[in-house]
Amino acid sequence: MKIALAQLNYHIGNFEGNLKKMLEAVAAAEKEGADLICFGELAVCGYPPRDFLEFDDFIRRSYASVDALRKASGNIGIIVGSPSHNPVIEGKDLYNSAYFLYKDEIIGVQHKALLPTYDIFDEYRYFEPATEFHTVSFKGKKIALSVCEDIWNVGNENPLYTICPLDEMMPEQPDLIVNISASPFDYAQANTRIHVVRSNVERYGIPLFYVNHVGAQTDIIFDGGSIVMSPDGKVYDEMPYFQEDMRIYDLNTVVVGGRTKEQSKDKIQLIHDALVIGIRDYFQKLGFKKAILGLSGGIDSAVTAVLAADALGSEHVRVLLMPSQFSSDHSVNDACQLAENNGIRYDIIPIQPMYAAFEASLKSQFEGLPFNVTEENIQARVRGTLLMAMSNKFGHILLNTTNKSEMAVGYGTLYGDMCGGLSVLGDVYKTEVYELARYLNRDRERIPLNSIEKPPSAELRPGQKDSDSLPPYDILDQVLFHYIERRCGPRKLVDLGFDEALVARILRMVNINEFKREQAAPVLRVSCKGFGMGRRMPIVGKYLS
Amino acid sequence: MKIALAQLNYHIGNFEGNLKKMLEAVAAAEKEGADLICFGELAVCGYPPRDFLEFDDFIRRSYASVDALRKASGNIGIIVGSPSHNPVIEGKDLYNSAYFLYKDEIIGVQHKALLPTYDIFDEYRYFEPATEFHTVSFKGKKIALSVCEDIWNVGNENPLYTICPLDEMMPEQPDLIVNISASPFDYAQANTRIHVVRSNVERYGIPLFYVNHVGAQTDIIFDGGSIVMSPDGKVYDEMPYFQEDMRIYDLNTVVVGGRTKEQSKDKIQLIHDALVIGIRDYFQKLGFKKAILGLSGGIDSAVTAVLAADALGSEHVRVLLMPSQFSSDHSVNDACQLAENNGIRYDIIPIQPMYAAFEASLKSQFEGLPFNVTEENIQARVRGTLLMAMSNKFGHILLNTTNKSEMAVGYGTLYGDMCGGLSVLGDVYKTEVYELARYLNRDRERIPLNSIEKPPSAELRPGQKDSDSLPPYDILDQVLFHYIERRCGPRKLVDLGFDEALVARILRMVNINEFKREQAAPVLRVSCKGFGMGRRMPIVGKYLS
Repeated sequence: MKIALAQLNYHIGNFEGNLKKMLEAVAAAEKEGADLICFGELAVCGYPPRDFLEFDDFIRRSYASVDALRKASGNIGIIVGSPSHNPVIEGKDLYNSAYFLYKDEIIGVQHKALLPTYDIFDEYRYFEPATEFHTVSFKGKKIALSVCEDIWNVGNENPLYTICPLDEMMPEQPDLIVNISASPFDYAQANTRIHVVRSNVERYGIPLFYVNHVGAQTDIIFDGGSIVMSPDGKVYDEMPYFQEDMRIYDLNTVVVGGRTKEQSKDKIQLIHDALVIGIRDYFQKLGFKKAILGLSGGIDSAVTAVLAADALGSEHVRVLLMPSQFSSDHSVNDACQLAENNGIRYDIIPIQPMYAAFEASLKSQFEGLPFNVTEENIQARVRGTLLMAMSNKFGHILLNTTNKSEMAVGYGTLYGDMCGGLSVLGDVYKTEVYELARYLNRDRERIPLNSIEKPPSAELRPGQKDSDSLPPYDILDQVLFHYIERRCGPRKLVDLGFDEALVARILRMVNINEFKREQAAPVLRVSCKGFGMGRRMPIVGKYLS
Repeated sequence: MKIALAQLNYHIGNFEGNLKKMLEAVAAAEKEGADLICFGELAVCGYPPRDFLEFDDFIRRSYASVDALRKASGNIGIIVGSPSHNPVIEGKDLYNSAYFLYKDEIIGVQHKALLPTYDIFDEYRYFEPATEFHTVSFKGKKIALSVCEDIWNVGNENPLYTICPLDEMMPEQPDLIVNISASPFDYAQANTRIHVVRSNVERYGIPLFYVNHVGAQTDIIFDGGSIVMSPDGKVYDEMPYFQEDMRIYDLNTVVVGGRTKEQSKDKIQLIHDALVIGIRDYFQKLGFKKAILGLSGGIDSAVTAVLAADALGSEHVRVLLMPSQFSSDHSVNDACQLAENNGIRYDIIPIQPMYAAFEASLKSQFEGLPFNVTEENIQARVRGTLLMAMSNKFGHILLNTTNKSEMAVGYGTLYGDMCGGLSVLGDVYKTEVYELARYLNRDRERIPLNSIEKPPSAELRPGQKDSDSLPPYDILDQVLFHYIERRCGPRKLVDLGFDEALVARILRMVNINEFKREQAAPVLRVSCKGFGMGRRMPIVGKYLS
């Protein structure tokens, strides 16, 4: 039996586009002699469809796509994910289902049982868990069909669920497992995924075909990396990261095994590639082509600009330099250099006239009061307004350049440097931004060395440095990582060796700035815990604050 | 047996504050001869605690509060909600539990089985559902203890769950039901709540004591309205809306019944009271006292200013009038009149100088291009920057004045009039804002009649009216209500009699503006479907867009 895995970039709610893509893959697989082709979880509607699932019309259109695929299944089996109605009155209205289509018939449906409801996942919001499990017979083989999380309750030390769907199917003695997934990227996920697939193969002793989505849906990025694993627990094949692909495997050869074919999993390279597809898909799926951003001469905006150029082409990226009286010469020079190094058009608009106009208009209100964060914020907001004006007039999307460390501690101005349609670096700590910069410079100096080497500064008052108000980034990032990604509380952090007063100060900064993150741009998620839907915190909470 | 219901305003994560409040209530109830006092769901930590629940430290502090209450239970039974550890390795780590404390012991624990995971609720994100159900014996009575949603699977036509916890307890023949809740307000909820309580009383034939939270946690407002229902299905008592209270009931008298005591449930009055407590608690729980907002002369900012004055005292509210060359004389006059009618301090800062500075700085970029939405947005952003400058300098929180109709169709400027820490009217349709205005004017003309009667306009270009770019609000609001609250798709809306092209146009406006709402201020929720956590939509989706 020849099995095709189609690793595609779906678009949420774009039923026509998704169906067209799948029908093309069906035709191609059929032409190459495949017996069966497998698409991803909820492939007909894209993932995550979120509350669109609450609209009957959305479900009706999902059914229509399944129907169209069924009509294309005359000579080839098709496995595809779709929401489906729960016919029982009690419980949620929908199932998250895998359809098995063949010879114009539905020859099997397996609903998902383990519904991820943590981090960015909300599946129990919509779906009733499956309670029945059966294999599907196809061309003399029994196939254990499963949806994403249903293979993730094996080999965990702290299992999230009380049942294991594949265990239920084993009495029927399946010959192979097919898993259709929509499993989002983070920089450690590819290894985890292989570990989980291997745990299943070791437990059941049969090959596993795992097919994933690829591409970004706003903040959520899918890396692909679909896996075929032989019964010997070796990775027979791993499909590419961050690209669409379709590959056909001979089941007999896979069963024999003995082959290992894995890709490099370098963290910074993966983050780079994820951010590039994240930017590209955001623009493409919204129907935009051009980005704009502000270039300060610092490292964050430099890295964002180069990533944007990699994603959209440097001819589609424009930058503004918006110096103030507090900007150092080197800032402007570094920014110009960055633009020139990467073939990016830049314009310079000094903010002084607008800043002065605000100062004059507020003079009678602010009489006798000292310069403080208010005046710093006005500068940032003048810049935000200029960038948005360019964005509005010329149809650019403004890219936000805030990094994860700043976003965590609220070191940024709401409606100022926090403006933007998409946050490119909001899940990348400052110390990782430096690594990204060095990675981008691996062949030539795209980012001026001076932007990498000088001490970071917001340049909103004379001689300002980040280190005036923040702990050193190497310490800060470690505390943040353990608090945010690892969810260590204050005691645990002190046990890990961090200074108690410093821990209290950092945690307080994180918690009192929830109101800013509430209004932040969506953040391209590259870690296991990014800001946004995956981290839901109260705003008026009084805890560690 | 005398049973006290304590309807308190908790604060998320404020363990000390919540505990102090509860210990005071325990002492007061004991003094008045109560045998038992009941607090709300997750009362020790506040509701919704969201991802704070993922921190061990947070759970440890919850246990410490339960422990302190246990030590206060020498002479009085205490029922209180708290998260607790799930000792079984499989499944979620926590339960959402009701503790029954008496004579320094835990005499019962009942975990919650039905975990709301829809709209604003995320309980299956954190909690394992209960599978065991037992009554608690106390002073010769058997009490069926339940947590919030556990009584909500009775009497529904489309039950969300497959089990019914109280059914499981009935073989033990309980004498009464106690339900501890954290059930958020919407303007129709008080009636629904009574209906649900009655369905249970009718099914089981015993009295039900239902205690709710009161007060706002950012966007989520609890109205209180705790209920005591006699076995005859009559509302023996309904505790006040939007106020803390403690009342003591004699079980024998409640069992006799025959008494009906309900409060008025006038929609606009409820919305008014909810918005007032929503503003007040947001400020108080964040430790702020003073609000600022922009006053345009229009109805939305006028209503917001009066609500703020009701919530914080007019001496704590400041407004800015920021006229442009496009502002009509009546706008400025109406705004001044509003401020004077309500004793609110106002200042006038014309935006022309700042707008002119932007125009000049962008001149070479915009050469030859016509005035369009870009220039309109610059005006809105200059105003946002002025308001935020005042907010930063003087420690005000900026209140956002956008209504739900505008927010739905994206009729507002991101980083401009969408600025603000809290959206007061973001869940109130324009047609309801008019009703609110008339309600606020019920005794005297607080809002100038001209603000109510003139055609709405953003005044961002000469002679502009909302009706130039939007359908009439009475039609628009009906379509929006059916699409947002009722989740009717396009076909259903046409079946309801709305024009097909108009429906398509409105739905498209709603869907393509998801990116704006993503960055909006949290919205005080007064309907069954507000913008924010309760409505989760993809940004890059291509559906009805």
